[in-house]
Amino acid sequence: MPKTKAAIIGASGYTGEELVRLMSRHPSLELAAVTSRQHAGKRAADIYPYLRPPQDLVFSNPSLAELPALAEVFFLALPHGESMHHAAPLLEAGRTVIDLSADFRIKDRERYRQYYKEEAPAEEWLQRAVYGSPETNASALQGAKLVACPGCYPTSVLLALAPALMRGWVRPDSVVVNALSGTSGAGRKADVSLLFSECNESVKPYGVGTHRHVPEIEQELSRVSGAAVIVQFTPHLLPITRGMLSSVVAAPSGALPSQQEVDAAYAEFCSTRPFVRYCAGELPEIRRVVQTNRCDVAARVDTRTGRLLFFSVIDNLTKGASGQALQCWNLIAGRDETEGLPL
Amino acid sequence: MPKTKAAIIGASGYTGEELVRLMSRHPSLELAAVTSRQHAGKRAADIYPYLRPPQDLVFSNPSLAELPALAEVFFLALPHGESMHHAAPLLEAGRTVIDLSADFRIKDRERYRQYYKEEAPAEEWLQRAVYGSPETNASALQGAKLVACPGCYPTSVLLALAPALMRGWVRPDSVVVNALSGTSGAGRKADVSLLFSECNESVKPYGVGTHRHVPEIEQELSRVSGAAVIVQFTPHLLPITRGMLSSVVAAPSGALPSQQEVDAAYAEFCSTRPFVRYCAGELPEIRRVVQTNRCDVAARVDTRTGRLLFFSVIDNLTKGASGQALQCWNLIAGRDETEGLPL
Amino acid sequence: MPKTKAAIIGASGYTGEELVRLMSRHPSLELAAVTSRQHAGKRAADIYPYLRPPQDLVFSNPSLAELPALAEVFFLALPHGESMHHAAPLLEAGRTVIDLSADFRIKDRERYRQYYKEEAPAEEWLQRAVYGSPETNASALQGAKLVACPGCYPTSVLLALAPALMRGWVRPDSVVVNALSGTSGAGRKADVSLLFSECNESVKPYGVGTHRHVPEIEQELSRVSGAAVIVQFTPHLLPITRGMLSSVVAAPSGALPSQQEVDAAYAEFCSTRPFVRYCAGELPEIRRVVQTNRCDVAARVDTRTGRLLFFSVIDNLTKGASGQALQCWNLIAGRDETEGLPL
Amino acid sequence: MPKTKAAIIGASGYTGEELVRLMSRHPSLELAAVTSRQHAGKRAADIYPYLRPPQDLVFSNPSLAELPALAEVFFLALPHGESMHHAAPLLEAGRTVIDLSADFRIKDRERYRQYYKEEAPAEEWLQRAVYGSPETNASALQGAKLVACPGCYPTSVLLALAPALMRGWVRPDSVVVNALSGTSGAGRKADVSLLFSECNESVKPYGVGTHRHVPEIEQELSRVSGAAVIVQFTPHLLPITRGMLSSVVAAPSGALPSQQEVDAAYAEFCSTRPFVRYCAGELPEIRRVVQTNRCDVAARVDTRTGRLLFFSVIDNLTKGASGQALQCWNLIAGRDETEGLPL
Repeated sequence: MPKTKAAIIGASGYTGEELVRLMSRHPSLELAAVTSRQHAGKRAADIYPYLRPPQDLVFSNPSLAELPALAEVFFLALPHGESMHHAAPLLEAGRTVIDLSADFRIKDRERYRQYYKEEAPAEEWLQRAVYGSPETNASALQGAKLVACPGCYPTSVLLALAPALMRGWVRPDSVVVNALSGTSGAGRKADVSLLFSECNESVKPYGVGTHRHVPEIEQELSRVSGAAVIVQFTPHLLPITRGMLSSVVAAPSGALPSQQEVDAAYAEFCSTRPFVRYCAGELPEIRRVVQTNRCDVAARVDTRTGRLLFFSVIDNLTKGASGQALQCWNLIAGRDETEGLPL
Repeated sequence: MPKTKAAIIGASGYTGEELVRLMSRHPSLELAAVTSRQHAGKRAADIYPYLRPPQDLVFSNPSLAELPALAEVFFLALPHGESMHHAAPLLEAGRTVIDLSADFRIKDRERYRQYYKEEAPAEEWLQRAVYGSPETNASALQGAKLVACPGCYPTSVLLALAPALMRGWVRPDSVVVNALSGTSGAGRKADVSLLFSECNESVKPYGVGTHRHVPEIEQELSRVSGAAVIVQFTPHLLPITRGMLSSVVAAPSGALPSQQEVDAAYAEFCSTRPFVRYCAGELPEIRRVVQTNRCDVAARVDTRTGRLLFFSVIDNLTKGASGQALQCWNLIAGRDETEGLPL
Repeated sequence: MPKTKAAIIGASGYTGEELVRLMSRHPSLELAAVTSRQHAGKRAADIYPYLRPPQDLVFSNPSLAELPALAEVFFLALPHGESMHHAAPLLEAGRTVIDLSADFRIKDRERYRQYYKEEAPAEEWLQRAVYGSPETNASALQGAKLVACPGCYPTSVLLALAPALMRGWVRPDSVVVNALSGTSGAGRKADVSLLFSECNESVKPYGVGTHRHVPEIEQELSRVSGAAVIVQFTPHLLPITRGMLSSVVAAPSGALPSQQEVDAAYAEFCSTRPFVRYCAGELPEIRRVVQTNRCDVAARVDTRTGRLLFFSVIDNLTKGASGQALQCWNLIAGRDETEGLPL
Repeated sequence: MPKTKAAIIGASGYTGEELVRLMSRHPSLELAAVTSRQHAGKRAADIYPYLRPPQDLVFSNPSLAELPALAEVFFLALPHGESMHHAAPLLEAGRTVIDLSADFRIKDRERYRQYYKEEAPAEEWLQRAVYGSPETNASALQGAKLVACPGCYPTSVLLALAPALMRGWVRPDSVVVNALSGTSGAGRKADVSLLFSECNESVKPYGVGTHRHVPEIEQELSRVSGAAVIVQFTPHLLPITRGMLSSVVAAPSGALPSQQEVDAAYAEFCSTRPFVRYCAGELPEIRRVVQTNRCDVAARVDTRTGRLLFFSVIDNLTKGASGQALQCWNLIAGRDETEGLPL
């Protein structure tokens, strides 16, 4: 069977590099083009020699008009605010767009403006964009032309809570999320605050009350639960390269479910989601999922305090970005969800 | 002025080693004896050559009856359950005991039994023990004969919340603590789960709902606030050697105070506590306090969610253990609180 | 095509775990049995849930007599001194044995005794054992029944030097090796010196002049060069989990070759070794090979000092142990060398 | 006794920050001025709040003409090429200059030009500059007006070898140095290659054959040995923040000395150098010297290979830069060498 030609737009960052790595092993995609302003004209094999991309693949820097001819499916690994401009000509030319930026994630234009300090994309495209959460939105992904891949924090929080939200167990105004992310989540930016000497042997909270993933987390928890969820979200920067952990505390909406009920709900959820693993006897650890597309989750009932606790771990570059983008592609193309992805 | 002779009982672990380090620079204490079953008979200068202890100091393993003759003040760096047996003969001989274990911390015998699976010490000593929190219990420490040094997590949570609790701003049943600790907090134990290869590039929650610091945190937050505080406490193991961060979320008991009121309350609290620094414009980072006896705290009002957020960082071996023990000694002896301690 | 049944003997350590991981993806091997004294009776899916081994696979602790019935090919991940006793009954029963310990590596019985403080295996088996270096000993591996897989340090040093040794460029008594290893190389041992708090933020030399890999390195460099090589070998423990770097300095045996000659020799060597990559323009970095079976090498001519410099990096658990063991299997079985291995 | 007024010129980097930290505890120096283009006009207490500098100290950006009025002694923490221009007016005004850059280190103008791609300072000042190695050049430091503080690698190599060089034990053309440095040695630069995600879980060699510390190392080893030493120097970047290890191999110039002779030579050397500690029974570890001004060294005789091995560890920011600068000041001022420095 011939492979589908794929292009990675903006392939110089960590998510772009991870896309190159994963696509080189993918059975139904052929890496036909990589673009980068920074690397334009250089061979991919010189920039990422350890990934052994095709010897003749060269970074290009095409105009928007030249983009559609490059491939059939486009993975946009661009900063927010840029993706929307690249997506428009591709969509109009009938191409499939899988966007890893935030541009098409937030349905509420006002909230997008508030948190991202920019105008959202055209309403038409915003409404057609499918939120690329394979575990909670699989049917919408089949045959989708425009996918808004979830952020890393939203992915980890959504998968930690989804089974409980689906059963209405969580009081919508009670969700407290403490999240921890490795430094690759901040991107390959020449920024003093991301230096090894600044991050090592330390942890710090950041973006308290203002992090851009707040509207996305609330939108998606609300979608899955059917109620307007408000989250108290506190992210922290960890001295690890890859990986993310979310620790969530919530009050029950009614009677506290038993641990057995919770275990059963999560086991059922996981039984049809190959990338989600429920930790019944152990607690999730970041290192167990690094370099995989898996999300390990746990849920615990604290009868002493009457609260529910949820934990999840992912690799922020794989399940939190590039791996999930390929998982979305598998669903778009009607193929096996796990194809070409590290379990 | 002659120095007071001090003994470190159980000097082979991380807190014992840190006591050796700090005492070597302390202007009013002379390290007169170190004990260790493991190292008995060896010179301290051979075990800790980089600390340059007195050349003729040798680890001993004295009987309980021999203990009181060793020194005037005793720092017990023993596992819980052992300290109480060493403290009794020392107290009866009129010696001063600064205990770094949990034995004398919990006033409620039933809770001690429940969390520590042992009987608490004799009621008489339990009632005489002073909780060694210099920032919230300074007057009780003056001239104290038996001090129960706080645990590391309780220290970090108490200092994060104390100014808010003192003003009655925190709803007692709403406190959610996510805490992160470096691996030295688990001690120098030959345990596979503490190996570099097991802890590195990872984070994991542990002791969820059962951690032994829960009764101590609740006891002390309740003492300072005058109300029965219940905490949701989730500790995590971090891939760093030293350092601890607590991220706390709480609902207000009444009207949400303003950020200005909160800033003022914390600034006032810190103005008379030389080891507590309020971060008004920044957020606390673990690396800023490592190798110091300081606690950096921040408090933030989230008007969107109507909640209060608190952060604190300490070095778990210094302010969380050995440094605080020496700070207690300074107060017992009526000397300057900061004497001999790294700021 | 039916898969070959494989057993992992001693599957509780890091190399055993890595074998489980790699074998689960291997196209021609079926993981039929795992043994471990420590885990006997437990399901592999409970010990390594994140690896998702076959649900019904249970750790066993068979007698030596029961071993041969377990599988057709046996990977021994046992401490040195134990492997030889397990290998004997397997070899007599006609099974294929791929031994990851040092037992069959050293042909000189006296040197084995000197460095390992034990008797070497029976001379007959010692002579039949094939040193499992796919890049320098491929033809001997075809159809081999007993393979002595190389140690991690010997693998990294041998691949760094092989092309230069083959051309006789290196003066045999001039080789100085400084090597750096991640902590997983020391195994999953409950040893205080391997705790996170002891290894982190530090590096230390160890085994200076006495490391057990010295006779193996000298034997193999001598084999490849045809001259009696003596190495000055200094290993160091690094604060990383996986990965190894060797920095080698040597004097030329005759005229100093040019950088162009060296580049050409290494490029030629790599052209037929899919797991060795020559870094012409860059220098090797450990992170580029972690989780792969690759060895990245570089060679540089220092005309100022008149010396040759060599560098190599591997993942000590993959190319340095379990991945290389599977690469040996591929060659034994006459299959593609790269089958089932991460490039 | 009144303190001497000191200024730190270029106080925004890691060595400048470390100078602020150390000077705040120094008994004979008063931090009177800090300069920084980047921070000009900001309060030091806002930039380094955790260091608690004087509340009213403000970063300035003075002209060269304004410099001399700021203080009596000047610590220049500037990039090479800039220091010489700042030093000139200060020296002409009779001020004392302690320069942490490379500008005044290299006596051979041609070698400076070759490695630094710039012209060396005026010959007059170059000849007056005293190389600030307190352990090998103490007498020259007394009353010095211009000190060229050693680089971090040269310090670690010189102290590892000095006792052996002084006895003529080392063959001058045989010195092979493998050195490892934490990332703070590269400075606080917004450079992608220094990001946490790029340095973590990795080690890489760099500057092979071209590192700027080569001429300095060779000059100083030659000075101490009285013979023209050539070094093979290979530095590597380590995933730690602070700390440096040098592993040195050398051939003996004549008969191999015995381990006892070597131990005695090093013990004698250390007996009058309070910051150098000889490791007789152990091997040096980086973590033992971090945050101290100490250098731990070891020397070993390998009778099998007939070579000498040397090891040393320092904190690159303390003994490798700012701590040593203050040690130089103590000697200039005729005070106790250890005053105000962490042992």
